[in-house]
Amino acid sequence: MIKVGIVGGTGYTGVELLRLLAQHPDVELYAITSRGEAGTGVAEMFPSLRGRVGLKFEDPAKANLAACDVVFFATPNGVAMQQAPALLDAGVRVIDLAADFRISDVAEWEKWYGMQHACPDWIGRAVYGLPEVNRAAIRDARLVANPGCYPTAVQLGFMPLIEAGVVDPVHLVADAKSGVSGAGRKAETHILFSEASDNFKAYGVAGHRHLPEIRQGLARMAGQPVGLTFVPHLTPLIRGIHATLYARITKEADFQSLFALRYANEAFVDVLPPGSHPETRSVRSANVCRIAVHRPQGGDMLVVLSVIDNLVKGAAGQAVQNMNIMFGIEEKTGLWQLPVLP
Amino acid sequence: MIKVGIVGGTGYTGVELLRLLAQHPDVELYAITSRGEAGTGVAEMFPSLRGRVGLKFEDPAKANLAACDVVFFATPNGVAMQQAPALLDAGVRVIDLAADFRISDVAEWEKWYGMQHACPDWIGRAVYGLPEVNRAAIRDARLVANPGCYPTAVQLGFMPLIEAGVVDPVHLVADAKSGVSGAGRKAETHILFSEASDNFKAYGVAGHRHLPEIRQGLARMAGQPVGLTFVPHLTPLIRGIHATLYARITKEADFQSLFALRYANEAFVDVLPPGSHPETRSVRSANVCRIAVHRPQGGDMLVVLSVIDNLVKGAAGQAVQNMNIMFGIEEKTGLWQLPVLP
Amino acid sequence: MIKVGIVGGTGYTGVELLRLLAQHPDVELYAITSRGEAGTGVAEMFPSLRGRVGLKFEDPAKANLAACDVVFFATPNGVAMQQAPALLDAGVRVIDLAADFRISDVAEWEKWYGMQHACPDWIGRAVYGLPEVNRAAIRDARLVANPGCYPTAVQLGFMPLIEAGVVDPVHLVADAKSGVSGAGRKAETHILFSEASDNFKAYGVAGHRHLPEIRQGLARMAGQPVGLTFVPHLTPLIRGIHATLYARITKEADFQSLFALRYANEAFVDVLPPGSHPETRSVRSANVCRIAVHRPQGGDMLVVLSVIDNLVKGAAGQAVQNMNIMFGIEEKTGLWQLPVLP
Amino acid sequence: MIKVGIVGGTGYTGVELLRLLAQHPDVELYAITSRGEAGTGVAEMFPSLRGRVGLKFEDPAKANLAACDVVFFATPNGVAMQQAPALLDAGVRVIDLAADFRISDVAEWEKWYGMQHACPDWIGRAVYGLPEVNRAAIRDARLVANPGCYPTAVQLGFMPLIEAGVVDPVHLVADAKSGVSGAGRKAETHILFSEASDNFKAYGVAGHRHLPEIRQGLARMAGQPVGLTFVPHLTPLIRGIHATLYARITKEADFQSLFALRYANEAFVDVLPPGSHPETRSVRSANVCRIAVHRPQGGDMLVVLSVIDNLVKGAAGQAVQNMNIMFGIEEKTGLWQLPVLP
Repeated sequence: MIKVGIVGGTGYTGVELLRLLAQHPDVELYAITSRGEAGTGVAEMFPSLRGRVGLKFEDPAKANLAACDVVFFATPNGVAMQQAPALLDAGVRVIDLAADFRISDVAEWEKWYGMQHACPDWIGRAVYGLPEVNRAAIRDARLVANPGCYPTAVQLGFMPLIEAGVVDPVHLVADAKSGVSGAGRKAETHILFSEASDNFKAYGVAGHRHLPEIRQGLARMAGQPVGLTFVPHLTPLIRGIHATLYARITKEADFQSLFALRYANEAFVDVLPPGSHPETRSVRSANVCRIAVHRPQGGDMLVVLSVIDNLVKGAAGQAVQNMNIMFGIEEKTGLWQLPVLP
Repeated sequence: MIKVGIVGGTGYTGVELLRLLAQHPDVELYAITSRGEAGTGVAEMFPSLRGRVGLKFEDPAKANLAACDVVFFATPNGVAMQQAPALLDAGVRVIDLAADFRISDVAEWEKWYGMQHACPDWIGRAVYGLPEVNRAAIRDARLVANPGCYPTAVQLGFMPLIEAGVVDPVHLVADAKSGVSGAGRKAETHILFSEASDNFKAYGVAGHRHLPEIRQGLARMAGQPVGLTFVPHLTPLIRGIHATLYARITKEADFQSLFALRYANEAFVDVLPPGSHPETRSVRSANVCRIAVHRPQGGDMLVVLSVIDNLVKGAAGQAVQNMNIMFGIEEKTGLWQLPVLP
Repeated sequence: MIKVGIVGGTGYTGVELLRLLAQHPDVELYAITSRGEAGTGVAEMFPSLRGRVGLKFEDPAKANLAACDVVFFATPNGVAMQQAPALLDAGVRVIDLAADFRISDVAEWEKWYGMQHACPDWIGRAVYGLPEVNRAAIRDARLVANPGCYPTAVQLGFMPLIEAGVVDPVHLVADAKSGVSGAGRKAETHILFSEASDNFKAYGVAGHRHLPEIRQGLARMAGQPVGLTFVPHLTPLIRGIHATLYARITKEADFQSLFALRYANEAFVDVLPPGSHPETRSVRSANVCRIAVHRPQGGDMLVVLSVIDNLVKGAAGQAVQNMNIMFGIEEKTGLWQLPVLP
Repeated sequence: MIKVGIVGGTGYTGVELLRLLAQHPDVELYAITSRGEAGTGVAEMFPSLRGRVGLKFEDPAKANLAACDVVFFATPNGVAMQQAPALLDAGVRVIDLAADFRISDVAEWEKWYGMQHACPDWIGRAVYGLPEVNRAAIRDARLVANPGCYPTAVQLGFMPLIEAGVVDPVHLVADAKSGVSGAGRKAETHILFSEASDNFKAYGVAGHRHLPEIRQGLARMAGQPVGLTFVPHLTPLIRGIHATLYARITKEADFQSLFALRYANEAFVDVLPPGSHPETRSVRSANVCRIAVHRPQGGDMLVVLSVIDNLVKGAAGQAVQNMNIMFGIEEKTGLWQLPVLP
């Protein structure tokens, strides 16, 4: 059994981690910490876990996280970079679901995240946890930087095209729509029901923190810098990301086959038949990305549709997938539940 | 492995059965029929099942349902009473998720359902599949009448009080709210998104088909006829029933303990601590009923709050629970997934 | 033109007041205050008002509210009782949309609102602003206590029955469902989109602040104390209250006619034909209460369905209706817009 | 008073027309027809109109539409082209809210709409009713082709850029999101609440009927053919379209000023300050298009955000705006209600 700790389990990625890990056959939930909720039973806060998760939130200062095999950080940005190093030094493996170790370029990270990085030396040793790209490196990683939700959907959608070099990498457009749970469980006015329901809007058009992360990933695939216009939107659904991607064709190819071949051996990426329109609900609560590729009217623009559940393949599920890889377990273990539809 | 057939799997109870049965370790999905969709792959219609359910819908006339150990009818009312007898005669056990065999009184059934019953002789042999009441009889049943969604939530909420004889059984009130999936997957105007969203209304106040079913169940518990006012409401959520029950106290008791004791050994009924307000999302996609009992201001009126997922404990999940009981399998098998929250 | 001031216009009742008053032909919007937003343009905060409301939020200490003919308090409970007296002394008429002056019994008020009342002497002089009950007194009122949202829907629903003395006044049940805007525009976790959407729950079953207000109103109608069980529920819609009311018949009557006659001259109460089920969307954004009365299966229990828009007839609209009465204007002025459906 | 007739008022554009026209000071609602609902009171079908619209639906064969000054067709595509000519010949002016007269190229129309055009001779005489482009021609039009919802949002968003010739007109991208009411009030499975709620998907990527209409409009502005990739999406909100538009800069300009100047005299187009993100709810139920223009990171791609209420500026409101222009009334008459927010 893998002894697992969770730092900061009171947000949506935290409770989703708990849902997945509590049902994982090879995991022992060992400790969970929360400064604000120390002493509260996890199932008191999240009644969906009643009778199934007996843990209480512990004070971070007192929890024996060093006894864990792996610790997940489901904390706001800036926490893992403070607390992970001590655990890493103690031999604990760490998966950070926040952004602290996702960007290789420290200056770039500090610009977008508005703080000084507390442990830049670990950035280089962190592995970017997108299994479809970095499976081998993840296996031996001590520290995994779990990708952001938008970056997962967008990178998986562009990857076959960029790797094959068949589209203009300088004028990519990613128009992405996210369910409201992607904004977290903080009490903020703009994500109140009465603000976000029956409403639709773009945000962060001037620049969103996931932009440099996506650009970095695509640039690695392309072997050159890429140009990307990224517009995120807030959508009145709880879970789900739908990325609509636009890329100009520079080289003819069988685009459907490119996708099918690239993901032929990936359990968690599903390439749909030609002409399909994936729905976010078709991946609700499941660790899967479904993708369709279109070439409208046979023109020179490709349209890729890529959907994930932002809390699963876009966060907690992908983190468990990374854990499975790190510990040499069959990758699907604990992640094979069917989506909940309707 | 239990060989399972499904008749009529294109509605919401059908796809929910498929979700549960496809993940059930002791089940072999053997056949599924649909007159309208014969030849279509199940996963073509429900992409959430892609890669996991290989079956195609078959023409009911051609499917070899007689080779199954058990057949679920996820059909409109009036279908099972036509088709089940032949299967039963062939030794197949049957679980009907519709209403054909729920009401013992044939005349009463015919009045509420507006048709003549096609096989009244099987009504007496059918077992009403509420495990918390009829577990022993279900074990040996050849034909199980799976309860309706409202009846499940309302009966489980009133049961401890009625059985203990501590409330006035003649003036019960059940104010029940259902998610829209309870109305099925038929193309009807009143359940369009633009009609049912951002809207709330009662319906069927003059009389709803679940009223006689609930009255019959409560009368059996009470050992006498009961009086019940039942008002269902359509609520803008997909899954979930919330029943708010009102009963006048006629005999003092420790009401919290009554509930706790009655359900102490029930895996799928969760009695919440005093003062709780169960949320429908705390049972979303899971086979559980959560109940809280209140006595506002110490008055003479009890308020019971009872929530289920109408498609799971209110339909497909309860059907699988019944199957597990019928086949001597541990009752939780295939039904132990945690609710999806948020 | 009536010179109007608004104290605290950053919440939902505030912005709804602004929507209605900005379109009112006899109103001059003169000043609006907000401690937190002083200096911000109203239309910067609420872009729906762009080009139509030029006011800026002013510091409450600096705004010249004493120059107004009437001031609306759209503030949290406890503010009007501090600030209204000085305005009243200056001859300004006041309409409080909060609860400060709704309950005649000071001790009762203090118990439910958990604070000491700052100006108990004005309580007796305040008029409870339910026009269908108190129209004459409102005309001359200096201080109007605008009713709560639930109390409006519930009192209008029970009134004809209680006044006529045809139901048992001791065992009334009000099962009420509210849209989330009723909880205000405060940043609180439980009303986040991802918490309140696709979810349904009761709350405050042990006791809600609107209970004493409703009881007081019904007792005045009955001429005796009443017994009421009141259970509010949070519903995933933005606007709307649906009250489902249960009352035992003690005297036979033509109940439909009772309602029709009682409200025959009321412009803002619409009694539906027998057998109707009013929908909340049929009153969305409009100052109207629609009511239907049912007697299921001819039994001894009446069921009344009463719907309002909690922000209009349940708050800002009723406040404007009161203003119209106070200033001798035709009551419908500025309140005659049709509901927005769908 | 303008005598108004409506053909086919049982859909969402029909009921929205009724809401607007019933409140229009210069309109007399004279007749409304519906084959299926002849004899039914309009307010029976839409209780939101109770007490305010006394009309009954009439049999189209019997209604005296020729006595009207203007007739609105709120019918499915293909109806107006059959019935409008007789009315036009009788001197009645016609506004078609469907697509029959929007496309000048008959062959193109027939290809996209899959039917033969019944009166191609009127196509050339019809005026495309986008007032911000064609105000003068609308004034004298006998037949107005009211624009589609997507085409309104997309054309108003691109117009200042295309007219000024500052972007590449061959690689335009319009990523558009629509509320579900845009799909109409037909009973179809994919727009059921339980299908469309908590879900997001693209549709019609291979080709949507609004594509040729948008292309035609943009080409007229550009004075040359344009290239457009248009992807519509179904979004879980009732009303609202959000178009996110991408255009490559080919000539430097002050883009904010381009928009501000172009729409300086347009009452129903609101250009937001730099950095804004318009929300669909800021235009809910109102006849206005709000637009923001962004240039992310100072790159070569412009992003324009354009929102409308698809039933108002995208349909019924624009139709009334056209009527006002045609009859020489102040353009804002009956269209000046504030948006309903929240």
